[in-house]
Amino acid sequence: MSTAPTLLTPGPLTTSLRTRQAMLVDWGSWDEDFNRITHRVCEQLLAIASANATHHCVPLQGSGTFAVEAAIGTLVPRAGKVLVLINGAYGRRIANICRVLGRTCLPFETAEDQAVSAAQVDRLLTEHADVTHVVLVHCETSTGIRNPLELIAQVVSRHGKRLIIDAMSSFGAIPIDASSTPFEALIAASGKCLEGVPGMAFVLAQKHALAAAAGNAHSLALDLCDQQAYMASTGQWRFTPPTHVVAALHEALQQYAEQGGLPARARRYAENCECLLQGMAELGLRRFLPAEVQAPIIVTFHAPRDARYRFKDFYEGVKAKGFILYPGKLTEVDTFRVGCIGAVARDRMQAAVNAVAEVLRDLHIRHI
Amino acid sequence: MSTAPTLLTPGPLTTSLRTRQAMLVDWGSWDEDFNRITHRVCEQLLAIASANATHHCVPLQGSGTFAVEAAIGTLVPRAGKVLVLINGAYGRRIANICRVLGRTCLPFETAEDQAVSAAQVDRLLTEHADVTHVVLVHCETSTGIRNPLELIAQVVSRHGKRLIIDAMSSFGAIPIDASSTPFEALIAASGKCLEGVPGMAFVLAQKHALAAAAGNAHSLALDLCDQQAYMASTGQWRFTPPTHVVAALHEALQQYAEQGGLPARARRYAENCECLLQGMAELGLRRFLPAEVQAPIIVTFHAPRDARYRFKDFYEGVKAKGFILYPGKLTEVDTFRVGCIGAVARDRMQAAVNAVAEVLRDLHIRHI
Repeated sequence: MSTAPTLLTPGPLTTSLRTRQAMLVDWGSWDEDFNRITHRVCEQLLAIASANATHHCVPLQGSGTFAVEAAIGTLVPRAGKVLVLINGAYGRRIANICRVLGRTCLPFETAEDQAVSAAQVDRLLTEHADVTHVVLVHCETSTGIRNPLELIAQVVSRHGKRLIIDAMSSFGAIPIDASSTPFEALIAASGKCLEGVPGMAFVLAQKHALAAAAGNAHSLALDLCDQQAYMASTGQWRFTPPTHVVAALHEALQQYAEQGGLPARARRYAENCECLLQGMAELGLRRFLPAEVQAPIIVTFHAPRDARYRFKDFYEGVKAKGFILYPGKLTEVDTFRVGCIGAVARDRMQAAVNAVAEVLRDLHIRHI
Repeated sequence: MSTAPTLLTPGPLTTSLRTRQAMLVDWGSWDEDFNRITHRVCEQLLAIASANATHHCVPLQGSGTFAVEAAIGTLVPRAGKVLVLINGAYGRRIANICRVLGRTCLPFETAEDQAVSAAQVDRLLTEHADVTHVVLVHCETSTGIRNPLELIAQVVSRHGKRLIIDAMSSFGAIPIDASSTPFEALIAASGKCLEGVPGMAFVLAQKHALAAAAGNAHSLALDLCDQQAYMASTGQWRFTPPTHVVAALHEALQQYAEQGGLPARARRYAENCECLLQGMAELGLRRFLPAEVQAPIIVTFHAPRDARYRFKDFYEGVKAKGFILYPGKLTEVDTFRVGCIGAVARDRMQAAVNAVAEVLRDLHIRHI
């Protein structure tokens, strides 16, 4: 087991042994002991966003995208109109979800290396007064860019519109406070900055919004109202939960608290990111994003210019040294990505940088 | 860990330690090693139904119900009409899915202790020639009843209609052969008779039917065409897979093969069921289903008539002795259920019967 490579990918990521060992027990999905685990997980997730009084935590089986679709399908009425702020692949996917679900969508796309600005959102909402919901991807995993959530939330609120935040890759590592940043829904998943394993996601949804949303959903499985109502009355998941994944998230959240919660997690990821950026800069590898919009989640690097560079060889070389990198997700520019998140500390990031240096040398890649 | 109770529930169920230990490794969802695991799982699932040449295996994140909804949403055109054969809660749920998805539904409900007959289906399809699809729950987990799949499949085929089988609690333990039992789609999940952990499901879908179904789906996340197309071109899941759950299913399928495949699994479950039925009969506990329709999956028992019987006390008593039972799911009759599936052998079933006997005595329940 100790020979398994370290995942420098933005989920699934490297988890602690303690988190994985929590999956060595089979839980009855109907049993009180398991219901208590679910309940504690939901309470802790709400607490991370200071949202216990105002929001429900609705967990959902599946990947993060399942919960994004569930939030849009449940909370946006069929006659709603959704402004989708896009500067990467996940924003584009949200616009696609709106189209498949038949929700009118106003996509607003900016360059992948530029944050969406609050002024742009202000102008858009002034021009399109019929918009009901705004969807923002907090940190785009496709580049690692961080959008100015707080400023945008204020603008959306001032216009009387509802904000849905895709906080998939930021939740738990970048502060989001429901009491000062108004949102109708926030979506994240088990296998990201909370360092659980993948297999479930969750939506923090305003209680009154959820209560008013019954009957909107396009789907039974992805109906958050139904999921929440069933859980409120029985303490159980509506359909078979991924029990081992839930138990792992529970264990991961215990460690999150023990390690010092969000500030400690943010600090460790910032250190990882700094170590990575500095080490890769020393190798001549150029970062894709300007420093001021770089989130400490995942870093996109330009591929070396050398004709001898092939991502597959580079990837396999680094993997043989114990690290799994991530391919780029940009259509225009050749890049690769390295995640800063997971149960990984600075020394392991340094080891990854050293591995990259060795592989570049082994592959005779000189023109970086 | 060894003190965790044995789950006599029909999924999540008791898995082997080896299956759970497969979750001690973090896999990169983009990595070739993981793609191979997914590929092998899909090939093995198709082989169980002799469907490799005719069907695709499309795995899906989430619970079994997610895959049932995905199959109906993807394969039934919006103008389709679905005959849903119902004799339990899961059949009723399928009719509900059709309603939410806006697919015209003809529900046909029979008593919960009676199998649907091929003659009834023949009559229904003669009367309703505009039906395009028939959905059958092979074994209803709400009672444990087995419906005559092969006979019904022949009738559906003779009428030129398409059959969708919810084989959630039968797949892997009761033979289904695609070469002799024509079906357009079969749905099952990781955490049932294959003895994996819950968190993913899969649809075995006819290749030509899937190819013709593009554009039907009501959902992005639950679009099986899109999932299949992406997997065919990349070898990867479209959205983050539940990597640990997939690895556990892979390990569970290895054990399935090593233990002798379907015949061995069927034999063990039949022995468990026989041991349970005989032991409970000796205690005076009455089974709900007639013997000829009882599947060796889960057995429904009438609750004792004694005024001192409370399910909760009974459940807690048996749990304290190391076994998790399952509540009844019938609205009209007070029952409880005991699963026969999972990594459990005859001696453990006998121990469960002994525990039930002791608890009935401890609770002074005499009028059974």
